[in-house]
Amino acid sequence: MTQKAVVIFSGGMDSFTILNKVIQQGDVPYALSFNYGQRHKKELDYAARACEILGVKHKIIDISAINELIGGSSLTDDIEVPEGHYEEESMKQTVVPNRNMILLSMAVGYAVSIGAPDVYYGAHSGDHAIYPDCRPEFVNAMNDVCAIANYESVNIKTPYIHNSKIEILTDGLKMGLDYGLTWTCYNGQEKACGKCGACQERLEAFKENGATDPLDYMS
Amino acid sequence: MTQKAVVIFSGGMDSFTILNKVIQQGDVPYALSFNYGQRHKKELDYAARACEILGVKHKIIDISAINELIGGSSLTDDIEVPEGHYEEESMKQTVVPNRNMILLSMAVGYAVSIGAPDVYYGAHSGDHAIYPDCRPEFVNAMNDVCAIANYESVNIKTPYIHNSKIEILTDGLKMGLDYGLTWTCYNGQEKACGKCGACQERLEAFKENGATDPLDYMS
Repeated sequence: MTQKAVVIFSGGMDSFTILNKVIQQGDVPYALSFNYGQRHKKELDYAARACEILGVKHKIIDISAINELIGGSSLTDDIEVPEGHYEEESMKQTVVPNRNMILLSMAVGYAVSIGAPDVYYGAHSGDHAIYPDCRPEFVNAMNDVCAIANYESVNIKTPYIHNSKIEILTDGLKMGLDYGLTWTCYNGQEKACGKCGACQERLEAFKENGATDPLDYMS
Repeated sequence: MTQKAVVIFSGGMDSFTILNKVIQQGDVPYALSFNYGQRHKKELDYAARACEILGVKHKIIDISAINELIGGSSLTDDIEVPEGHYEEESMKQTVVPNRNMILLSMAVGYAVSIGAPDVYYGAHSGDHAIYPDCRPEFVNAMNDVCAIANYESVNIKTPYIHNSKIEILTDGLKMGLDYGLTWTCYNGQEKACGKCGACQERLEAFKENGATDPLDYMS
């Protein structure tokens, strides 16, 4: 049966893949993006454009006020973005306190409000080492809360939690998705930098899949 | 040992009592109020004034953007506020989807950010029937999440979850608190209306305690 599903959609590759997965399984996605004071709006612009092209209902919610509470990450502050591969110490700089509980709690509220039984988010295995709130035990514990927090139970679904970004891309390429509609780079210039950790990981995922990234890069 | 504690502080009686309890036990409270598009700012004004008088650090975070997701409650919308005692059907109109998970997730993020091991919030037994996210099982499930969601474990404390509002007031009166610094009324006029469910419950609590409410009422 067709049902509504809230999809937390950053505009990046993983949540783009999930958004399309939800469409292909016949559900009606309600894409949800958060403006939490990212240093650039590029990913959100890409999110909006992808939803427009896919004909998906999309909301961008401005929660940048909470930076007054949880500031201190290089994703939102003016700390230099770490270059090169995801290395433990530099990646720890990108941990935002309680980030996923905050985003999921709002997504779950939205789901209750529109009568959607499911909330999708793109946790993947590559994040487990650094981000405690991307691990299966976190999602399981959140689902225990979501079963009792409202009159309607909501289920948080993380279809790729046991997969790497490489495997997510494999799945998306099989689905025929156009990743030129997604933005990954930490820097917000006209073209992706190709040098930051996010770009390098993205490029590696394409290489591992024997595919070419359709996105334009600086170099 | 003195430690920091985040206190979710609405400006009402229950959280005012908890804020003072935290001070009296020797901890350093960081009071946190949310502007979620309440129909009036009276409670927030009282919250700010109480913190100023108590010398407590206080933040008011504007999260009214999330009403675009979870709108539909009489506390935020222009539905008429139910008069009279808390009755099940009229009170259900005041349920905000996933409210406490949303507020607590931000409070926990704040706690992680400042290094506070505890977050206090004023759940009480009178809310259990109507609000699933005020029940002990909700708080317990949230604490299971908060133990693993970040590198630092945070504990949500609800000292009055098994007490009625009458008993909370009993405790506060014993502590010598001035409840003239708190606002309860759903309506935002110069004086409290004395007629809405919140006012009636407040007045009843004073009566049951054989005390007089120092707040000014219309009639």
